[in-house]
Amino acid sequence: MYDSLYFNGIILLGYFAAFCTTVAFLPQALKVWRSKSSKDISLSMFIIFTIGVASWLIYGLKINDKPIIIANSLTLVFSLFILIHKLKDK
Amino acid sequence: MYDSLYFNGIILLGYFAAFCTTVAFLPQALKVWRSKSSKDISLSMFIIFTIGVASWLIYGLKINDKPIIIANSLTLVFSLFILIHKLKDK
Repeated sequence: MYDSLYFNGIILLGYFAAFCTTVAFLPQALKVWRSKSSKDISLSMFIIFTIGVASWLIYGLKINDKPIIIANSLTLVFSLFILIHKLKDK
Repeated sequence: MYDSLYFNGIILLGYFAAFCTTVAFLPQALKVWRSKSSKDISLSMFIIFTIGVASWLIYGLKINDKPIIIANSLTLVFSLFILIHKLKDK
C-alpha cells in the first residue's frame, strides 16, 4: 500500500533540502555581482562544481526527481553566472 | 522493458555528479584545516548549507538513491568540520 502522506513528507523534505543548499549558495553569487570581483574564487574548483551541478540536473531529469531538478537548475544559473564572471576576470 | 545499460548510464552519471560536487567542496575544507581559520566564511550561510546537506542525505535514504546518499554523506562530513571550526572561532 502507498502512504501518500508519507510520500508527500519525503517530497517536502527534498524541497526543503533544495531550498537550503540553493539559498546558502546565493550570498556568494550576490557577492560577485556586487563587488564585480571573483579573484578569491578558485577557477578549477568552480569548473568542476558547475559540471557537477549540470550532471545532477541531467540526473534529476533522467530519474524524474523534481527537488533535484529545481535545486540544480537554480544553482546552475548562479554557478554559471560566477563562472562567466571569473573567466572574464582572467 | 528495462534497459539495464541505460539504467547503469544514469547511475554512473549520478556518481559522476556526486564526485564533482564533493571534490569541488574539498579545497574549502582543506583550506580551513591548514589555515585553522574560517573568519571569511559566513556562519549563517554554513548553518543553512549544513542543514540542507543533512536533509538531502535523509531524502536520499528515503528514496534509496545511492549517488545522493554518498555525495551528501561526504559533503556533510566536510561541512560539519568547517561548521565546528567556525563555531570554535567565534
